[in-house]
Amino acid sequence: MSGKIDQELKARAAKVIPGGMYGHQSVGLLPATAPQFFGRAEGAYLWDVDGKRYIDFMCGYGPNLFGYCHREIDAAYVKQMSEIDVATGPTPRMVELAEAFTGMVTHADWAMFCKNGTDASSMALLTARAYRGRKKVLMASGAYHGAAPWCTPIPAGTVQEDRVHFIYYQYNDVKSLENAVAEAGDDLAAIFASPFKHDVFVDQQLPDPAYARRARELSDEKDALLIVDDIRAGFRIERDCSWNHLGVQPDLSTWGKDIANGHPISAILGNDRAKEAASQIYVTGSFWFAGAAMAASLETLSLIKTSDYLERIIALGNRLREGLNLVASARDLHLSQTGPAQMPLIMVVDDEGHCDFDKSTAFAGGMLEGGAYFHPFHNMFIGAAVTEADIDQTLEIADGVAKRMSASVTA
Amino acid sequence: MSGKIDQELKARAAKVIPGGMYGHQSVGLLPATAPQFFGRAEGAYLWDVDGKRYIDFMCGYGPNLFGYCHREIDAAYVKQMSEIDVATGPTPRMVELAEAFTGMVTHADWAMFCKNGTDASSMALLTARAYRGRKKVLMASGAYHGAAPWCTPIPAGTVQEDRVHFIYYQYNDVKSLENAVAEAGDDLAAIFASPFKHDVFVDQQLPDPAYARRARELSDEKDALLIVDDIRAGFRIERDCSWNHLGVQPDLSTWGKDIANGHPISAILGNDRAKEAASQIYVTGSFWFAGAAMAASLETLSLIKTSDYLERIIALGNRLREGLNLVASARDLHLSQTGPAQMPLIMVVDDEGHCDFDKSTAFAGGMLEGGAYFHPFHNMFIGAAVTEADIDQTLEIADGVAKRMSASVTA
Repeated sequence: MSGKIDQELKARAAKVIPGGMYGHQSVGLLPATAPQFFGRAEGAYLWDVDGKRYIDFMCGYGPNLFGYCHREIDAAYVKQMSEIDVATGPTPRMVELAEAFTGMVTHADWAMFCKNGTDASSMALLTARAYRGRKKVLMASGAYHGAAPWCTPIPAGTVQEDRVHFIYYQYNDVKSLENAVAEAGDDLAAIFASPFKHDVFVDQQLPDPAYARRARELSDEKDALLIVDDIRAGFRIERDCSWNHLGVQPDLSTWGKDIANGHPISAILGNDRAKEAASQIYVTGSFWFAGAAMAASLETLSLIKTSDYLERIIALGNRLREGLNLVASARDLHLSQTGPAQMPLIMVVDDEGHCDFDKSTAFAGGMLEGGAYFHPFHNMFIGAAVTEADIDQTLEIADGVAKRMSASVTA
Repeated sequence: MSGKIDQELKARAAKVIPGGMYGHQSVGLLPATAPQFFGRAEGAYLWDVDGKRYIDFMCGYGPNLFGYCHREIDAAYVKQMSEIDVATGPTPRMVELAEAFTGMVTHADWAMFCKNGTDASSMALLTARAYRGRKKVLMASGAYHGAAPWCTPIPAGTVQEDRVHFIYYQYNDVKSLENAVAEAGDDLAAIFASPFKHDVFVDQQLPDPAYARRARELSDEKDALLIVDDIRAGFRIERDCSWNHLGVQPDLSTWGKDIANGHPISAILGNDRAKEAASQIYVTGSFWFAGAAMAASLETLSLIKTSDYLERIIALGNRLREGLNLVASARDLHLSQTGPAQMPLIMVVDDEGHCDFDKSTAFAGGMLEGGAYFHPFHNMFIGAAVTEADIDQTLEIADGVAKRMSASVTA
């Protein structure tokens, strides 16, 4: 059970918030030890409302790349806010930020900013359809690209027509992709691709270079746009679009979450081929032109360019992965660790390698109880504020949890 | 022409932002004197990047109800940000804010928070369709409810299926509404209504109480949900949903823009009838659970409850309207001033009363040149930081502009 104050807040929330909470931060499917509400965050640590501390391995589900309450980034936000934030027009920060992104991301000639990852996904969809006036859009089955009617993973409230022009293929499966392209015929507008397969509940998969290259080729052959959805993984794989190391450049890429270390801003980047189409769509939002989040993003991009954060989160992720493998093997725990080490999905699996929901919940629940915020079925995020000592402490907690789980099976 | 620094920034923007700028803050259709970029904002004033000061009558297109860089509201934001903002779960501010809204807005039993007004509109759409599993949704022709594929006013990149289940009626026209309801048959999910007609380019219209009451009756008869879109007008008409004074309570209302005085947050409020449906939809966003904007909103709601801001913006709006009427009549300028005085649409009209785009542009352009930020075809917003002296200075500027326009006609 979460703490007393958390329980009281949950009871109040149930009265004034449908379902008590909604979206990805609802703890409805999480272990009973998972607190719903938090009172403080700093660096790599979170404190729940009852004062219990956690080493955080979720980074706010992605946004907090450099740790919570980052001094320089937050100072940039506050400075800009004290001069001008939301106003009757944008600030110079918007031009500077578009220049910074296009200077960093190889495929990008232009940028547009928005607030939600879903905004960026929807802008990519609109741009791709405006590009040649075509309708069909390919997406990998099970991939998450946002929570608008056309893509939300739970269909309540959507209508069949919202998805009538979408065709689904299997991630990393060239034949499946080719079949989907054939099905689209002369009406192919775009291929959406996650940088790697990071669906919930199933093992993550790194991209097969042959699949990525084929997606690029087919887009070129059909004069359609290739979209890499880097909202979740952007700047956690490389200091560029996440398919850059494969030698595959998309026409559009979507960004969000960590590009201002938790301050609210997302983006779509594109190449010149897609620029005219992007200028035709009408998208906007009350807070999209706000300067403060852009100033924070400029500071974040600067840290991305100049610090060794990427090498550190990869090393920390590997330290965690290797340590957990030792724990699992010593305690006979069937642990599946997939995806990039710095964005691991860690589940307890059954003999067929499928997520054992109860055991995954028990494992993550034990980690939470021990003071490490683990998620049972969503990929986690290693932040740059985590230390080796935090990882080692986490491994100790894991060993205790695995030992108890093993004992309870034997008993 | 806008200033030199503005011109330089626009040239840079053209290279890295499609169309040079997008959405409602693009100055593409505005007078040549309208600056694209701003450097500072405080209270009722804006300074463009070239240092020119404007009395602002747009409030950032709505958000800045209490003036820019408001000390108490911004301090609440910064204090919360220094403790915890975006994290792996929400903060107690979320529960407190839902309680504050439901305590203030008569029809509301619950609240959900998001970032864009469009998010709130889309959540209302999904909730209404989830409510009884029906598809047809009524909207007033020409009304703005956001910029998602199902509602964006410019169709580039959308497909016909995005709107196949929408039926359009004429605002304030009971017969037209009844016809639309009849057309929906047994499949009516919702009726969307703006609190008053605030479309661009055409005179605003206050709601006919008979229309508002009929919308409520028809929703009840058909067991559909009535949605008032208060994103633009919320808390600028009353300290409650904007149809409260008509005695008409919606099932859902959508809010945004000014509820945190410019900090990024929007909301959907609903009654218990709609709560179960709202709990079924899957909507979320990376920054929706962030504490800082909620803390700012709590402070803003407190000011809304305890200050005389509403009476002041109405009085200031009337002072501006009456003064402009005197100017127009003295200078023989055909000025149309419609809608609530605190949210006026001010256009120069032809003999048939239609917007004269060139003359409206000339008038707003002159006002901008004189140092008052006027818009030629979008409703304006009188903020609570404006003073009577600001209004009087604005009227002097207007008199000069009207005099010059009148002279140029005579010449």
